[in-house]
Amino acid sequence: MNAEIIAVGSEMLTAGRLDTNSLFITDHLNSFGIEVTAKHVIGDDRARLVMAIQRALGDADLVILSGGLGPTEDDLTRDAVAQAVGCSMSADAGILDAIEQRFRTMNRQMPEINKRQAMVLDGAEILSNDRGTAPGQWRAAGNKFVVMLPGPPSELKSMFRRECLPRLAKIAPPTAIHTEVLRVTGISESYLDQTIAPIYVGRENLETTVLAHDGDLQVRFRAQCATAEAASKLSREMADLAAAALGDHVYSRDESTLETVIGRHLLAAKATLAVAESVTGGGLAARITNVPGSSAYFAGGYVTYSKRMKTEALSVPAALLAEYGAVSPETAKAMAEGARTAAHTDWAISLTGNAGPSTDGDEAKVGTVYIGVAGPDGTEVTHRVWPVGDRDRVRSFAAQAALDLLNRRLRARA
Amino acid sequence: MNAEIIAVGSEMLTAGRLDTNSLFITDHLNSFGIEVTAKHVIGDDRARLVMAIQRALGDADLVILSGGLGPTEDDLTRDAVAQAVGCSMSADAGILDAIEQRFRTMNRQMPEINKRQAMVLDGAEILSNDRGTAPGQWRAAGNKFVVMLPGPPSELKSMFRRECLPRLAKIAPPTAIHTEVLRVTGISESYLDQTIAPIYVGRENLETTVLAHDGDLQVRFRAQCATAEAASKLSREMADLAAAALGDHVYSRDESTLETVIGRHLLAAKATLAVAESVTGGGLAARITNVPGSSAYFAGGYVTYSKRMKTEALSVPAALLAEYGAVSPETAKAMAEGARTAAHTDWAISLTGNAGPSTDGDEAKVGTVYIGVAGPDGTEVTHRVWPVGDRDRVRSFAAQAALDLLNRRLRARA
Repeated sequence: MNAEIIAVGSEMLTAGRLDTNSLFITDHLNSFGIEVTAKHVIGDDRARLVMAIQRALGDADLVILSGGLGPTEDDLTRDAVAQAVGCSMSADAGILDAIEQRFRTMNRQMPEINKRQAMVLDGAEILSNDRGTAPGQWRAAGNKFVVMLPGPPSELKSMFRRECLPRLAKIAPPTAIHTEVLRVTGISESYLDQTIAPIYVGRENLETTVLAHDGDLQVRFRAQCATAEAASKLSREMADLAAAALGDHVYSRDESTLETVIGRHLLAAKATLAVAESVTGGGLAARITNVPGSSAYFAGGYVTYSKRMKTEALSVPAALLAEYGAVSPETAKAMAEGARTAAHTDWAISLTGNAGPSTDGDEAKVGTVYIGVAGPDGTEVTHRVWPVGDRDRVRSFAAQAALDLLNRRLRARA
Repeated sequence: MNAEIIAVGSEMLTAGRLDTNSLFITDHLNSFGIEVTAKHVIGDDRARLVMAIQRALGDADLVILSGGLGPTEDDLTRDAVAQAVGCSMSADAGILDAIEQRFRTMNRQMPEINKRQAMVLDGAEILSNDRGTAPGQWRAAGNKFVVMLPGPPSELKSMFRRECLPRLAKIAPPTAIHTEVLRVTGISESYLDQTIAPIYVGRENLETTVLAHDGDLQVRFRAQCATAEAASKLSREMADLAAAALGDHVYSRDESTLETVIGRHLLAAKATLAVAESVTGGGLAARITNVPGSSAYFAGGYVTYSKRMKTEALSVPAALLAEYGAVSPETAKAMAEGARTAAHTDWAISLTGNAGPSTDGDEAKVGTVYIGVAGPDGTEVTHRVWPVGDRDRVRSFAAQAALDLLNRRLRARA
């Protein structure tokens, strides 16, 4: 069973508005095993809206519209659905009473135009609105269904929970869904896909998606089967095979972020952490302190943008900076060890590099980053190069790579 | 002239993802007087995608697709557009070289599947990608146009600005548009709208939008007129009136960010800056170092998460911490002055507070932040409280407020 969602309203096509109702609706439809195969946003244009509804009813078993149920001329959803399914409408006395009553409680008289909101498609079931004036409607169209919901999220959500969930339970196919997630880093999206494609390609009842963001990857295996046991078994089996193929690039199987996983390792080892960064300018510390409770293991960080601060805060010898430059493996090592000493921690990460757009003087080429990890068992320095062009991207990738290196060290000792 | 936008990818149909690229695209299309009449999200399903492209080309003059240009089997946009417009594809040697080169700079070999990204529709113009491997494509289809862009926002935006804007300028109808932008902080979105609504409501040929993000507000006055002079005059007049009404809450009129404006003040005064932060955990330094060239005035930062590090790195007396606690005006003052001394800078900002979710021991209540600004003319401490609940939001608002306070001090001396 599949569904399409149509958000109605010209304001939803402006540069400042997104249709967030569809996320709420999608979440609930998925829980019934109903797949959303397309979403649309259509302006207040009758011909386009009728066409969109007819096409959606051609392509999907269930069409859910949000918005366009207000009292004004612009509110075309009722008319357009009636035209699309070829039925007439009539005023419902009960709804009219309820709207009039709502205005009376606010000591106002119902404006004439609100009568439009009492028009109901012949054959439709009325979905009550406990947060506003516009009722929703649920109507069968052949062996398919079309549902009209109000646009304001608070009205839509309340109506959906009370009126639509029970109706969906009756029409949805008996099915169960289970999703397993692997979080992965240290490889490219295409390498990841190439590695796991032989595992998932052609598998029935399985949807595999890969999300990538600045070096952080997520693989989701979503199984949809007749029973909960079968869905759980299939998605676990896929995740186990993929995890084996990806090896130590997998850093979590419970959706935890890399910084959360690091926090758990540090807490378990009763160990502490400090950072010293230049190229990421505070972004590495910000990632680590994203985790609530990180103050239990994170002592702090040094954002050493100037050479003088590298020397004074981290005791990086001025002679070393002069000889090798700020962007060098020698400086990365001295920064990590300096931060570990100054902050009295068990571990320290350092990052030095150039994110661009330009290089100055003795600096290495843009995109070059050195990462140091100092710990109880010594200091390691890693060199990475990212393609030039996007300062933000180099900074994000560098922070991700530094966390990955620390996590590998912590995991090796766990 | 009208356009439809299609976001491609099954992941864009999940309950956690929204197509934000369309907002950026809409904003630019509108600036050319091109109206967006529908938006669609279609999964990785070839038949549905071909159908959606054909329908969009039937209904609109311009069809813009985002996503589905990656190297995997799932990436169907190239194939689907070729099928929809009825043309063949061939591998482009130049693109292939560029992708191979990109992998070589990262010391990796190009996986075989990346060759798919070099397939170009016959008759299409190639849109270069300076942030990733997938090039875009621009192709005429009769008297209409279809454009393929990559899904990752950073790649899409850069490509759109460099490659699509000049092409849109050639095909867009002759109309003149001028947009004036005010960047504003220190007030709420509703207070801002209440203040400027009397200025813009009911004005013809004018579109006013307000964007808000964690305390940073943008007001855009977009005038669309028959001549460039008229558009420029109308939007400037509106921006001048609004700027007068908003007073010193306006921090820039050229779209510069707050951190960029601060950088300009510091460069002009040949002054330097350091930061000391706990609650924002590096986020304040990351904002400041977002600005290319910030190393000219930013010495560095101290992320002092532990009390010991506050004492050792910033010379905050242990007795003061014991008496007043880490989240106190006294500590904020000592941190700002300590950072200014340790980093040998003219200015220093400090931030101490609790972003939640819980308080420990002597900490003040969640959402409370103290901000210190130390400069040549003394130190000021400001107390702010944000509603509890969202750790990330408190951290973002706190960094924004700290930059606002520094900017006001710098502006007063300019």
